[in-house]
Amino acid sequence: MLELQGIAVSDGIAIANAYCLVEPDLSFEKFFVSDTKSEIKRLQEAITQTKKDLQETLVMAESKLGEEKAAIFAAHLLLLEDPEIVGAIEAKISNGMNAECALHEVSTMYIVLFEQMDNDYMRERAADVSDVSKRLLARLLKVEIPDYSRLSSDIIIVAKDLTPSITAQLDTAYVKGFVTDIGGKTSHSAILARTMGIPAVVGTKNATACIKHGTKIIVDGAAGKIIVDASREIFEQYEVQQNRYLMVEQKLAPYRSLASISADGYRVEIAGNIGKPEDVEKILEAGAEGIGLFRTEFLYMERQRLPDEEEQFTVYRQILEKMQGKPVVVRTLDIGGDKQLPYLELPSEMNPFLGYRAIRLCLQEQKMFRSQLRALLRASVYGNLKIMFPMIATVDEFRAAKELLYEEKKRLVSSGAAVSETIEIGLMIEIPSAAIIADIFAQEADFLSIGTNDLIQYTVAVDRMNENVSALYQPCHPAVLRLIKMVIDAAKQHGKWVGMCGEMAGDKVAVPILLGLGLDEFSMDASSILKTRAQISKLSKEQLTAHIETILKLATAGDVESYVQKHLTSAE
Amino acid sequence: MLELQGIAVSDGIAIANAYCLVEPDLSFEKFFVSDTKSEIKRLQEAITQTKKDLQETLVMAESKLGEEKAAIFAAHLLLLEDPEIVGAIEAKISNGMNAECALHEVSTMYIVLFEQMDNDYMRERAADVSDVSKRLLARLLKVEIPDYSRLSSDIIIVAKDLTPSITAQLDTAYVKGFVTDIGGKTSHSAILARTMGIPAVVGTKNATACIKHGTKIIVDGAAGKIIVDASREIFEQYEVQQNRYLMVEQKLAPYRSLASISADGYRVEIAGNIGKPEDVEKILEAGAEGIGLFRTEFLYMERQRLPDEEEQFTVYRQILEKMQGKPVVVRTLDIGGDKQLPYLELPSEMNPFLGYRAIRLCLQEQKMFRSQLRALLRASVYGNLKIMFPMIATVDEFRAAKELLYEEKKRLVSSGAAVSETIEIGLMIEIPSAAIIADIFAQEADFLSIGTNDLIQYTVAVDRMNENVSALYQPCHPAVLRLIKMVIDAAKQHGKWVGMCGEMAGDKVAVPILLGLGLDEFSMDASSILKTRAQISKLSKEQLTAHIETILKLATAGDVESYVQKHLTSAE
Repeated sequence: MLELQGIAVSDGIAIANAYCLVEPDLSFEKFFVSDTKSEIKRLQEAITQTKKDLQETLVMAESKLGEEKAAIFAAHLLLLEDPEIVGAIEAKISNGMNAECALHEVSTMYIVLFEQMDNDYMRERAADVSDVSKRLLARLLKVEIPDYSRLSSDIIIVAKDLTPSITAQLDTAYVKGFVTDIGGKTSHSAILARTMGIPAVVGTKNATACIKHGTKIIVDGAAGKIIVDASREIFEQYEVQQNRYLMVEQKLAPYRSLASISADGYRVEIAGNIGKPEDVEKILEAGAEGIGLFRTEFLYMERQRLPDEEEQFTVYRQILEKMQGKPVVVRTLDIGGDKQLPYLELPSEMNPFLGYRAIRLCLQEQKMFRSQLRALLRASVYGNLKIMFPMIATVDEFRAAKELLYEEKKRLVSSGAAVSETIEIGLMIEIPSAAIIADIFAQEADFLSIGTNDLIQYTVAVDRMNENVSALYQPCHPAVLRLIKMVIDAAKQHGKWVGMCGEMAGDKVAVPILLGLGLDEFSMDASSILKTRAQISKLSKEQLTAHIETILKLATAGDVESYVQKHLTSAE
Repeated sequence: MLELQGIAVSDGIAIANAYCLVEPDLSFEKFFVSDTKSEIKRLQEAITQTKKDLQETLVMAESKLGEEKAAIFAAHLLLLEDPEIVGAIEAKISNGMNAECALHEVSTMYIVLFEQMDNDYMRERAADVSDVSKRLLARLLKVEIPDYSRLSSDIIIVAKDLTPSITAQLDTAYVKGFVTDIGGKTSHSAILARTMGIPAVVGTKNATACIKHGTKIIVDGAAGKIIVDASREIFEQYEVQQNRYLMVEQKLAPYRSLASISADGYRVEIAGNIGKPEDVEKILEAGAEGIGLFRTEFLYMERQRLPDEEEQFTVYRQILEKMQGKPVVVRTLDIGGDKQLPYLELPSEMNPFLGYRAIRLCLQEQKMFRSQLRALLRASVYGNLKIMFPMIATVDEFRAAKELLYEEKKRLVSSGAAVSETIEIGLMIEIPSAAIIADIFAQEADFLSIGTNDLIQYTVAVDRMNENVSALYQPCHPAVLRLIKMVIDAAKQHGKWVGMCGEMAGDKVAVPILLGLGLDEFSMDASSILKTRAQISKLSKEQLTAHIETILKLATAGDVESYVQKHLTSAE
C-alpha cells in the first residue's frame, strides 16, 4: 500500500481507477530498411487503425460534444486519406527509411509549410497535421495515447496539472476525482473540482510517477491523501466514509430552501460562482440566491476564433433567464496572464500575473471588448444583470471601461434595441491599490466585489501556484483582513453593497470574520454554499463584530486562526 | 538625421560613438570539403588568431579587473592548446566535414559531457568550452564579437537590455551613456546610469535595429531622445546644452556641504544608495549624509561560488570605515526573481517577482544567510551599521530573520569576537502587506525603510519592466501615497525613524509630498542628492503638511501630479 500526501482542495471520498494523463513517449530511432515493401505495409496498417480510431472518436464526439466540436476529427480523417501526404511518406520508405522517420519528415515539412503561411486558416492546419501524425506515430510504435473524450467508466484523473484545454475535452460524467502533481488551493483543477463537487488533491509532487494508469485508487479530499494498492479492509473503511459524506450532505439539505440568516437575524446573500452555463443548475440545486461571479472566459477559450456578439448574447440571455430575476454578476473578460487565447497574439511576459491581462487588455482590444459589452447590454432585459470589470488598479481604468459601456448602450438604444435601465456597474477589488482607495471607487460604482484569490496574491507578493512560497498565501494575514475591512467600510459609507467572490468567501475560518465585518454577499463554488449557510445560521453577527478590533491588531495569520478557533466558532 | 524616442531615466547629454551590444550571427552551413588540408589550415589560423585575442584580453583584464577575474581567460587559452580537443576537430575535417561544423560537433560533445557530470567544477568547464568555441567560430566565420572589457575610447552603449552580467564586465571609465530597447525607470540599466551619473534612455524599442555600431550619436537623457546622423549644427547645439548641465552642477555644488533643511527649518537626512564599494566615493562627493541602502548582491553575482565570510567582512568593514560613523544601512541578500546566481540552483518560476527570493530564500538557505549575518556583525564595530531585511511580507518572517541574527551574535560574542551593541535592525517595507501592518512592525523593528520600486509594483500589480503595462507603474497613485502615509505614521507613533530607498525618494513630484508626510530619511542615487537637497531647501514642511489631507483624497495619479505642480512647487 502506498500513501501520497498532497494539498486538500475539495472534500469527499472518491474510489475508482486512475486515469493517467501523461505525455506518451513517442521517441523513435532512425534506421535503414531493406524490406521496404513490408515497411510500407506496416504503415498502411497503422493508417487503417488510426482511421478506425478517428471514426470512433468522431461518432462519440458528435453525440457528446456536438457537431461543431466534432468536426475537427472529420478534418483529421481527410488528412489520412490525402494521397499526396501518404504518397510522400511511402516514397521515403521506398528509399530505405523506416516508417516512423518517413512520417516524421513528411509531417514536419507540412507543419513548417503551413505555419509560415500568412493565413490563419492554413496555420491552424499545421496543428491538425501535428495531431494526426502523433496518432499515427503512436500506432506505428504501438504506444497507447490517452483519449480523454472517450471515457466509458468512472475514473480518477491523475495528471501533472489540469489545463483548461484538457478539462474542456473531458467527459465529466465519468470523472470522480482529481489528483495532480502541482498546484494549490486556487489552481484551476481545485476550482473545477469544487464546482463539480468531486474530491481533489493537488500538489502531490509525484502522483503521476507513482500511480499506474488503471490502478484502483482512493482519494481522500478532506485529508489530502491518495491511497494506492489498498487492502480490502481499507477500501471498505473508505466506502463507509463515503457514505458518511452523503449523510452530511443530507443533513445540509434543509438549508437549500432557507434564507442565509445569522443566529441573531442578520441577513446576507449566498451566491454561486460559475464558469459555464451548465453550472447554473449546480448552484441552484445547492440553494444559491444569485450568481456572484460568472467567469466569461469559457466563451473565448478552446476555440479557433473570437465568439461573435450573437453567440455571447445567447449564452448571457440563457443564464439570466434560468436565474429568473435573481442577481447575476457577470465579470467581463479576464484573459491574459496564465490564460492565453490561440487567436489573440499576446506578448510572452516575465511576470504574467503582473502583466497585460483582463481590463488592461480589454481597454486596448476595444473591438473585442465592445462586442462583449453589447451582448451583455442586449441580454440585460432578460433578468437581473450586474456587470463588473476585473483587475481594476486605477480610477482611470474604471472610468474608461464605464465610458465604453455607456457608448455602446447609447448606440444600442438609438438603434432601437431594448436595454435594461437598472444594470448595476461595479468592479472587482482584487488589486491592493483598488482596495486602498475603495472609498473613491464606492462613489463611482454601484457595488464592489472583493476577489480574494488575486488580492491575497498581490498583497503578500506571492504567486499562489508556486509551491516554494505558497505558505505565504495567507487569507488570514492581518493585512489582508485590514484591506477587506477598508473595502467593506468604504462601500457602507457610500451606501453601496459589497460582495466577495474569491475562495475565501466559503472558508470556514474566514466566514465568521467576514460576517463580523459586515460583508453583504458571499459568492462561492456550489459545493460550499450549504456548508456556509449552515455555519452562518449558527453565528451571531453582533458578537462577531465586537471581536473585529482585537483581531485586526493581531500580528500573524496564525494568531488570527487560533483566535477564530477559540472565540468565533459559534454563537455563544 | 534620425530621432529615436525612449523613456528618460537619467539626465545629461552624451555625445560619442555607439557601441552596439548585439548577439553576433554565428550561423553556418554544413558542407562537404574535398581539400581537407587547406580546411585544417583554415582552422589552425583561426586558432592562432583566437589565442592572440585571448592573450590580449588576459593582459588587459589583469590590469583592469584584477587577477582573479582575469584567470578565466587563461583557462580559455589552455583549452585551445588541448591536443585532444583540437585533434578531434581535425579528425572530423579529415573526413570531409567543414571546420565550423567539426568545431560545433566536438564542442557540443564536450559541453554535454561536462554538463552531465555530478561535479560543480566540471560543470563550469562546459561554460568555458562554450565561450571559447564561440570565439573560434567567430574567427572562422570572420564575424566580429564585441569584447566590452577592451574599450579604449569613449562610447555610448546600445543594447537590447543591460544585464548585470554584461555591466560587470564593462570598463565603465569609457562608457558615457546607455541606450536600450527595453526597460523602464527602475530597470537595472537605469539605476546603473544614475549611479554612474551618465545619461540614459531606455525602452526605445528599436535602438539596436536603427543604430549602427560605431556611429556618432547624441543621447539627451532628460528628453529621452537619441539623435543619429546629426548635422554639425545639431552637434554644436547639444555641446552647448552639455555645458549648461555642467553649469547647473556647479550651481548645486554649494549644497554639497549643507545640511538637508527645509525653508521652514525642518531637518531631514539625504542618504545615498550604493551597489558597490566604489560607489561610496560618488555619494560622498554628492554630499550624502549616510548610506540608506547598500545592496549586497554584487558580492554574490558574477562569480562561480558563494563569497566566504571573510571576503564579505572585508567589504563591509571597508565601507563602514569610509563612511566614518555616518549611518550605513545594509540590506541583506536580495537574490532570486530576476537576479539569479550560477552556483545556486533556483527553480524556474512563472512569476519570479511573486516568487522565491530575498528573505524567503535566505530563511531556507540558512548557511548562506548566517555567513552574511556573521560578516555584518563582525564588521559592526567599524562604523554605524544598520541591518535591514528585504521582501518581508509577514511578521513571522521578520521574527525568524531577527532570531537568526541574534543566534549568530550570541555565538560570536561567546567566541570572544567584538560586536557592536547598537546595531539597529529594520526591514524594507516593499510589500503591501508589510505597509498595511507597519504599526505592528514598528513595535518590533528599530526602523522602517520604504522600498518604493517593489511597493508600487505590487500595490498596482504591475511588472515595471513590462512595456505593455508600465503606464500603470504610478508613484503618485493615491493608494501608494496612502500606504506611505500609513508607514510613516506607524513609525512616528512608535518613536522609530522611517526612510525611503526607492527611486521615488529623489523624484521631483514626490519629494514635496514625502516631506509633507514627515519622511525622515531620503535615500537615492548619487546623481539626485544635490538636486533634492536644493529642492527641499525651497519648500516649507508645515505648508506641505497642510495639503496632505486634500492630496490623499484625489482620485488619480494625474490629479496628484497636477496638484503638486500647482500648489507645492516651492514655499509660498
